[in-house]
Amino acid sequence: MPHAFSLAEQADLLSTAEALAEAARGATLAHFRPQGGIGAENKLTSGFDPVTVADRAAEAAMREILATRRPKDGIWGEEYGVTKGTSGFTWVLDPIDGTRGYLSGTPTWGVLIGLSEEGESKPGAPLMGVIDQPYIGERFLGGFGTARVTGPMGQAELRARAGGDLAQAVLFSTFPEVGTAEEGAAFARLAKQVKLTRYGTDCYAYALLAAGQIDLVVEAGLQPYDVAAPIAVIEAAGGLVTDWAGGPAYEGGRVLAAANAEIHAAAMAVLQG
Amino acid sequence: MPHAFSLAEQADLLSTAEALAEAARGATLAHFRPQGGIGAENKLTSGFDPVTVADRAAEAAMREILATRRPKDGIWGEEYGVTKGTSGFTWVLDPIDGTRGYLSGTPTWGVLIGLSEEGESKPGAPLMGVIDQPYIGERFLGGFGTARVTGPMGQAELRARAGGDLAQAVLFSTFPEVGTAEEGAAFARLAKQVKLTRYGTDCYAYALLAAGQIDLVVEAGLQPYDVAAPIAVIEAAGGLVTDWAGGPAYEGGRVLAAANAEIHAAAMAVLQG
Repeated sequence: MPHAFSLAEQADLLSTAEALAEAARGATLAHFRPQGGIGAENKLTSGFDPVTVADRAAEAAMREILATRRPKDGIWGEEYGVTKGTSGFTWVLDPIDGTRGYLSGTPTWGVLIGLSEEGESKPGAPLMGVIDQPYIGERFLGGFGTARVTGPMGQAELRARAGGDLAQAVLFSTFPEVGTAEEGAAFARLAKQVKLTRYGTDCYAYALLAAGQIDLVVEAGLQPYDVAAPIAVIEAAGGLVTDWAGGPAYEGGRVLAAANAEIHAAAMAVLQG
Repeated sequence: MPHAFSLAEQADLLSTAEALAEAARGATLAHFRPQGGIGAENKLTSGFDPVTVADRAAEAAMREILATRRPKDGIWGEEYGVTKGTSGFTWVLDPIDGTRGYLSGTPTWGVLIGLSEEGESKPGAPLMGVIDQPYIGERFLGGFGTARVTGPMGQAELRARAGGDLAQAVLFSTFPEVGTAEEGAAFARLAKQVKLTRYGTDCYAYALLAAGQIDLVVEAGLQPYDVAAPIAVIEAAGGLVTDWAGGPAYEGGRVLAAANAEIHAAAMAVLQG
């Protein structure tokens, strides 16, 4: 647990998060949509997981800011790993969530900036988070009593939807092939019961849930840096994020994000078969 | 065939297209991302095809402009059907392509504005087109020697990619369930051979292809108003759009859009099994 923190410290943490988002925005847009393709490496020897120059530049830019502004905080970053802190706070950074979307030019990848309690081997519970979409110029922020989006249509409060009827629900996931065979079968059961299932949005789906536009996001095989910021933003907007069994989701793995407790319970019952 | 037309008439047609896009932008954004869901009707008694207030308001606004500026042109609209003209030009309008995406709050639906030769029972070959994404503020325009995008990062020329290697290609389609069982099987064969397959972008995928970001878009069961503008934009950027057998695609049905002749031939060979 972090030390007790004042309103002044909350304000500093929020403004630090915005400064990180600004820095990452510049670094990611500098390499977005080149003509003729971008140089991507394969991070894993099997499977397709491109890492771009932009990904690294964005995390480096964020780490530089933290080194100056919040040197005692820990960092858990997708690109440069774990830096231990002493404050009890850990910044959980995914400089480009949705690298495949980024490489395809779509505007639904995002910069994920989470602030979590320090955990044992992984970051603890998220306290605050930002989902930033640099190309659109859209920033979803949640935590410390704030839940807002700023973007092309100005600023608005984030408030997740009411309503628990699966037959009317809109479900998002990044790929049709969700997780393992068993996980994929559970997802397919749920997809059959909802009104509409859509794919391909990466972290942007969590932002849409917080903004009251969709009801469910279900994924599997996630990392802590994929979920810390989305959890904070969705919880601030009144939604829930758990694993598929109702436990904490902030360590990654299977994630069920829901607009409210009713639709969460209905979806979890189907996922558990 | 339309009558021979001057540079002055081309300029008028281009500026009319931009005026239509502006009008549709206002009408579509006025109803985008409400809190608590939008009133959608089912257009078909079976299946899910929402029509929104915005869809109709946007087409009505565009028709009003055409009645004033181009009263002799025909109109083929998704919402209000066919208006016969006498000029040899037909405006082919889809006020919201991707209504499901629109209803989910995603930023990858679009306003499609095509200008085609007059055809027999359907519009003829596209001459010029606009793919407009109002929320992002991004407009892709192609035809009459112009191929450009204006958006958050300024203005840029549209130029489709070189390269014919399927194993390196990025393929987009709106849904994983493409068309009939037979069409779906052909799509699945192609998806297996490319580097990356992504879903969920509606007309935005055609814009990404014209912008040199992806290589292939494959769909089935399309209407003329789904394809007129994308064909014009992609052809202006140096790409190709045909049906799956290499014939014209502007009457709708099966569509294969490709960044260049080489990747087009490679994809068509796989689709034809």
